Amino acid sequence: MAAVPTLAPRIARSGVLPLCRRPPAWGRATQQPPACPPLAPRRGFSNNKILVELDESKGVALMKFKSPPVNSLSLEFLTEFCISLEKLENDRACRGVILTSAVPRIFSSGLDITEMCGKSTEHYAEFWRAVQEMWLRLYGSNMVTVAAVNGSSPAGGCLMALSCDYRIMGENPKFSIGLNEAQLGIVAPFWFKDTFVNVVGHRIAESSLQLGSLYPAPEALRLGLVDELVPEEKLQEKAAAVMAQWLALPDHARQLTKSMMRKAVLDRLAAHREEDVQNFISFISKESIQKSLRMYMEMLKKKKS
Amino acid sequence: MAAVPTLAPRIARSGVLPLCRRPPAWGRATQQPPACPPLAPRRGFSNNKILVELDESKGVALMKFKSPPVNSLSLEFLTEFCISLEKLENDRACRGVILTSAVPRIFSSGLDITEMCGKSTEHYAEFWRAVQEMWLRLYGSNMVTVAAVNGSSPAGGCLMALSCDYRIMGENPKFSIGLNEAQLGIVAPFWFKDTFVNVVGHRIAESSLQLGSLYPAPEALRLGLVDELVPEEKLQEKAAAVMAQWLALPDHARQLTKSMMRKAVLDRLAAHREEDVQNFISFISKESIQKSLRMYMEMLKKKKS
Amino acid sequence: MAAVPTLAPRIARSGVLPLCRRPPAWGRATQQPPACPPLAPRRGFSNNKILVELDESKGVALMKFKSPPVNSLSLEFLTEFCISLEKLENDRACRGVILTSAVPRIFSSGLDITEMCGKSTEHYAEFWRAVQEMWLRLYGSNMVTVAAVNGSSPAGGCLMALSCDYRIMGENPKFSIGLNEAQLGIVAPFWFKDTFVNVVGHRIAESSLQLGSLYPAPEALRLGLVDELVPEEKLQEKAAAVMAQWLALPDHARQLTKSMMRKAVLDRLAAHREEDVQNFISFISKESIQKSLRMYMEMLKKKKS
Repeated sequence: MAAVPTLAPRIARSGVLPLCRRPPAWGRATQQPPACPPLAPRRGFSNNKILVELDESKGVALMKFKSPPVNSLSLEFLTEFCISLEKLENDRACRGVILTSAVPRIFSSGLDITEMCGKSTEHYAEFWRAVQEMWLRLYGSNMVTVAAVNGSSPAGGCLMALSCDYRIMGENPKFSIGLNEAQLGIVAPFWFKDTFVNVVGHRIAESSLQLGSLYPAPEALRLGLVDELVPEEKLQEKAAAVMAQWLALPDHARQLTKSMMRKAVLDRLAAHREEDVQNFISFISKESIQKSLRMYMEMLKKKKS
Repeated sequence: MAAVPTLAPRIARSGVLPLCRRPPAWGRATQQPPACPPLAPRRGFSNNKILVELDESKGVALMKFKSPPVNSLSLEFLTEFCISLEKLENDRACRGVILTSAVPRIFSSGLDITEMCGKSTEHYAEFWRAVQEMWLRLYGSNMVTVAAVNGSSPAGGCLMALSCDYRIMGENPKFSIGLNEAQLGIVAPFWFKDTFVNVVGHRIAESSLQLGSLYPAPEALRLGLVDELVPEEKLQEKAAAVMAQWLALPDHARQLTKSMMRKAVLDRLAAHREEDVQNFISFISKESIQKSLRMYMEMLKKKKS
Repeated sequence: MAAVPTLAPRIARSGVLPLCRRPPAWGRATQQPPACPPLAPRRGFSNNKILVELDESKGVALMKFKSPPVNSLSLEFLTEFCISLEKLENDRACRGVILTSAVPRIFSSGLDITEMCGKSTEHYAEFWRAVQEMWLRLYGSNMVTVAAVNGSSPAGGCLMALSCDYRIMGENPKFSIGLNEAQLGIVAPFWFKDTFVNVVGHRIAESSLQLGSLYPAPEALRLGLVDELVPEEKLQEKAAAVMAQWLALPDHARQLTKSMMRKAVLDRLAAHREEDVQNFISFISKESIQKSLRMYMEMLKKKKS
């Protein structure tokens, strides 16, 4: 389950979802919409691929990936993600963000293979910088970040979950998670690896990365890849409860502590960023890799039809 | 449960406890005190805050923290601790030391907040150097060090336990242990973090430090934060048995091995010691931090009365 | 259970075992030997101490240690091991190797003590370089390496297992495994330690190395020191199945991933190799160490008779 190539025009312009942006008139409404209790001022914004709702009373944003069919991490998705995250990061009303999916049964399928196949060197470079940027911002975020993993989460989708402070997954053995790049003949870059080792330790990371292992939710819990499993219908509620627990702590000390834990690994990519882009380009441009990606895309097309 | 500010004069001059220092006259005693069987030559010394008994026949010292109400790590306590440890370290008759508390239900409450609140820059510097010194000596000790954690052990108390070779905790769910600095808005310094990561791994350390988690004894065991739980009344006996097991190995190879495992982390503080003092001073001198420490002290005062 | 000094002439010249090297005449045999099904082209080679069978149809070599009584890692054994591994590494027909023992109840007893006792400085240097070479080649192998640990595996034997990609052990509580060097008063070198930490983490490695712990198979599984236990009679079958699973992945990405995981630790020895040889020589030449090795050898001699 890596990124399914989007055969339909990639940018669906699905329009802005009805956000819970409270208009002044609402004050006079006789009936409040249940999701917006009277005392919770909410703001939201939505791009094509990502929907954000900010509950100012709690200081918590809910960021929903809505890029069907599988929330693959296209250049557009990554760009919107970074912009959304930056907005929240700079918003003093926001202290924490919950990542989840608006698409059933999939959190994110990872990097969009169409971005890595048959494109120009310049495109590969632009795409890879966006992948790096996503991770640098998310892993280095000053906010509390909770992943509410409500579906499968292979490869880059797993990286996003790993980059959060806490991972809660739907208690569904059909949901799987893991850095399965090796199954496509692709090597996870060193900073995927560093993030993974920080979560599951060296031994599990080593064999998982070599085998491209995808773990069903219960196994992911056992390995510490996710912190908790809850029934799917309780996932958002649990994520909110965990977030409240993290936000009970003073921000400043928590942020300094988080930075102390993650700085070494973040600095390593920051120091070798351009080198990492060049590595990606030279690897992905190999004819053998391109061939295996094309075959994979063909296989996915057939699966769909 | 961090250091309770001692409202009574801090240096209680409680006098020297009746140590098991065998006077010549004892040889003629008709009844031996049960704690000192006839064949065990024992020496001891006691300062105001720490009581040391050395059993020369076994090469093992028992170091008891006796600084009621909560064995907080005041400048005086830390100074006595370092002197006591150095004495033992240089005593060829001593190969191992067991740390435990003479105060019921508390191992140590951690750094004494009164030392960090409303004092001069010079005082902060002196205090912090003593904290560093305690850790450098304990984590780097050539002796076998066993923590018999017979009570709660937050913050600096937890660090002392983490710095030993082995941790045995009383099987009492009311006893808790953890680096809970974040709960006071304080950041655990990098060497607390390094020590913690070496024991519980990166993932647990990261979330625990951010949340300032205190774990009840059974949970601490599950995470590897302590190595073993035993009923409280068996704690000293078990600590002695574990110590005997460690001392069955030749000292020289064990010491070289211990140094190999801990050197990188010890060297890191040694190389940045003065920088770390300055960091502490500038952090602790912040008005926001001082305010939060004062509030915490007020809360503890009210709790007591 | 470290290396038993071989009292009989060390090089037994036991001759070449009947390898499954298919002679042309076999094509006409009415009955195929069950271990060599008709379609599996096999090649093999054997030295004095190690037997290798390569199944070209699967791309898998089986490397059997056959140096009774305990497969101790003598200079001769190590030299043969390195040559055999290099042959396979350079053989395009070979993608994976399974290490196992042809001697009952022992995988390998570790470094041969006779090589470290009463010999010249030059001999110590030559021996230690061979130990380094074994590890550098095995830990850095491009092939998939699976240890089928069909017996006890102390010290250097444990290191060989730790250096593989995956460890399967016979489900026999009498089989034990661990880096027990400390029990002989010997210090495991830093690269043994690094390999161990990568597998079991810092806390377990620290206490295990100081105590020279040998773990029975079930305990080794619990600590992650081995990945799986299977009944002894299923060991080879299971190893073949695991190998097939690893070989299902494309080699190139897997090799790059493995190198990414292990490079830091491999580079560290490569950068300090001669220094490490000198350390070994000066340590092993100490009269106290020589004495303790002699005593250990005496004890083993008595045990045998």
